[in-house]
Amino acid sequence: MQGTLGTADRSQSQFTTHPQPQAAVPAFEAAFSAGIGAVNGSALRDMLRMAQVPGLVNFGGGLPAPELFPMDRIAQASAQALDRYGWKAVQYGTTEGFLPLREWLAENTCPGAGRVTPEHIQIMTGGQQSLDLVAKIFIDPGDTILVETPTYMGAVQSFVPYRPNFAAVPTDEHGIDMDALAEVLRDLAAQGRTPKFIYTIPNFQNPTGRTLSLERREKLLDLTSQYGVFVVEDDPYGQLRFSGDPIPSLAELMLRRTGGDPDRSHVLYCSSFSKTLAPGLRDAWVMAARPITEKLVLAKQGADMHTPTLNQMIVTELLPLLPEQTEKLRQSYATRADHMLAVLDRELPQGVTHTVPEGGMFLWLTLPTGVNTTAMLPRAVERKVAYMIGECFYALGGGQNTMRLSFSSAGLEDIDRGVAALAQTIRGELARL
Amino acid sequence: MQGTLGTADRSQSQFTTHPQPQAAVPAFEAAFSAGIGAVNGSALRDMLRMAQVPGLVNFGGGLPAPELFPMDRIAQASAQALDRYGWKAVQYGTTEGFLPLREWLAENTCPGAGRVTPEHIQIMTGGQQSLDLVAKIFIDPGDTILVETPTYMGAVQSFVPYRPNFAAVPTDEHGIDMDALAEVLRDLAAQGRTPKFIYTIPNFQNPTGRTLSLERREKLLDLTSQYGVFVVEDDPYGQLRFSGDPIPSLAELMLRRTGGDPDRSHVLYCSSFSKTLAPGLRDAWVMAARPITEKLVLAKQGADMHTPTLNQMIVTELLPLLPEQTEKLRQSYATRADHMLAVLDRELPQGVTHTVPEGGMFLWLTLPTGVNTTAMLPRAVERKVAYMIGECFYALGGGQNTMRLSFSSAGLEDIDRGVAALAQTIRGELARL
Repeated sequence: MQGTLGTADRSQSQFTTHPQPQAAVPAFEAAFSAGIGAVNGSALRDMLRMAQVPGLVNFGGGLPAPELFPMDRIAQASAQALDRYGWKAVQYGTTEGFLPLREWLAENTCPGAGRVTPEHIQIMTGGQQSLDLVAKIFIDPGDTILVETPTYMGAVQSFVPYRPNFAAVPTDEHGIDMDALAEVLRDLAAQGRTPKFIYTIPNFQNPTGRTLSLERREKLLDLTSQYGVFVVEDDPYGQLRFSGDPIPSLAELMLRRTGGDPDRSHVLYCSSFSKTLAPGLRDAWVMAARPITEKLVLAKQGADMHTPTLNQMIVTELLPLLPEQTEKLRQSYATRADHMLAVLDRELPQGVTHTVPEGGMFLWLTLPTGVNTTAMLPRAVERKVAYMIGECFYALGGGQNTMRLSFSSAGLEDIDRGVAALAQTIRGELARL
Repeated sequence: MQGTLGTADRSQSQFTTHPQPQAAVPAFEAAFSAGIGAVNGSALRDMLRMAQVPGLVNFGGGLPAPELFPMDRIAQASAQALDRYGWKAVQYGTTEGFLPLREWLAENTCPGAGRVTPEHIQIMTGGQQSLDLVAKIFIDPGDTILVETPTYMGAVQSFVPYRPNFAAVPTDEHGIDMDALAEVLRDLAAQGRTPKFIYTIPNFQNPTGRTLSLERREKLLDLTSQYGVFVVEDDPYGQLRFSGDPIPSLAELMLRRTGGDPDRSHVLYCSSFSKTLAPGLRDAWVMAARPITEKLVLAKQGADMHTPTLNQMIVTELLPLLPEQTEKLRQSYATRADHMLAVLDRELPQGVTHTVPEGGMFLWLTLPTGVNTTAMLPRAVERKVAYMIGECFYALGGGQNTMRLSFSSAGLEDIDRGVAALAQTIRGELARL
């Protein structure tokens, strides 16, 4: 079988400046992998295009508030890092990550809960890389993985190229429904299938803003231990709680069960500095048992060798700022969320419900059945408001009547204007039903 | 089938501070993917451990000379970028990359040779990511890919998790042997197999330091066009030529064949600022036809969302420095290479041959058959010299009597001392044969 890239005119095989327009168009589509073919990135791109419309209030993005970035301190930290470490700040670094940062994370990820060492910490180039490499070390094509319904679409995009079968677990206002999870696990076990892992965001979930209750966290550890399923706990928003009481992470609860031994834990804890310091630095980490971090190192060597050295040093310089900075974020996001919730309650037509997040950046709207938020989006944009369509958060389809709103980067007046426009758009849709 | 993670004592499913030492050790190894299981990273780790020996002359690493990093200019560029772009320097950026950098790369990657636009340029988090994502968009398990023998082991590490079958193509002093390539392609075609791509480093190859001749470049384009095989041209060292005449890249030669149309080219050109500015910034790029960059964007969204924004801006600020900086590197590396070649010719016992690179960072030693450079390495380290063992550059095994030496970061006196120690070690091995 011969291919189809070009005509390969042998008479012109010597160097030549003559164009050879007879060269055929390469057969691109036929060559791409099934894995990348299964990835659908259109929702994100549509959102980016929409962000260009002048005067648009965009609740669709997942951006932290840029006016709260500690710019002076970042500039200072960059200068300090280059001054202190010199060429080491821009030379190749170790794949595991900058040791002082790993030491700090070992002490502070689950303070006091276990014997976590830097060997349990792998630095990543943003939280997205944590998901990619976790998928890479666990998923063979056809493996089952469990995701919440709805779940973070960026995680699905990381997992899909590895060709897993998704099993979706229903959620309610307290997060994953544990009876449903038990049933899914039982059914899979009956088919001889053990899911590789369950992916969950227990705190202020993306997209719903919901938080998994303590009781359910314990139950999740019970069930996953019983069935031999790893837990990928994604916690980028945990530091952004602005109401209610903190709940220990799954990683911390599991450390208490193992007598503090991280090497007996089946929880991979993933977090990031993107939501507490600044996302463009791309600094994140995974805390896990050493057999897992050892595989993550191998995967990361092939993925990007190491996270940029300077960026890890900048973050390390900024660690003392974290308490003050996260407090500032909590206050600001609380104000924005409270305002958005009040305006939603005032403006939204009957039959539309929303979640009430205790932290994070997002809340979730459920519209009456029959309204299609994807079809509605262009009409919302006409009224100068955008949101993230809900169905892209459903790994197995569904959610046509849902949407995600982000309150983290919207000004209070924009919230007034945007929610009013959204309510008007929804009323228009309801009138069409 | 039930799993084996833990004992899941239901009586303790409530939050508790009591350690539960009965929790079983999770079944880590059984859970890992076949892809990551196939990755062997030990050679790199051994090298890192060796770098710790005091007084060791380490020719094994692939590090650029840190004393040549333009530290003042990097510090200035970082301050300028943060000043000029403010919060945009640390906010989420587009997956494609920072537009001014992409514009410059579109104009300067193959200047004058074609109608390359920013849409043909994808910014990557280091050249390693280019290899990972190229593998991700092309390789389904069982696909054939072609690599040089020997080839860059980091590329193999990027490709292996996607489970390709490697076909190895022999090389000689002018790079890939084109008769052998024709034969490999013919044999595969007879089996109905079309390789997805051939991976090659045409300039100052890692590990051998060899350069693919112009005649062979044209022939490579002929053969790959004929058989429908994409070309992954990895060119991190192209700017570091210190002797001989420059040869156009495969990408440039192909643009001349398509009348300058990048969308009819089957060459993916990968390069990086790691060897010309500084590796720790992790900034690299791929130039390719739009159907390919469109898939790379999807893959990168799931891999790390985008390359750190600040780092792309720092590199953009440093672009005017590139001609002066690369000239400095060429001069310095020429001095080191010349010196190493002279000392090798003086010190090495008969029967040991080496390549004579015209640029880059590496040269390649071939020892008499029977000498095993892997077994020899501890004895070399005893004499305070280290090298990279050759067999790790052979995707399908072989090369036991070869090694890679890096001259880029060694001082001239270290070269004297290290090569003398190496020659002494080799003489010891020859005496054992």
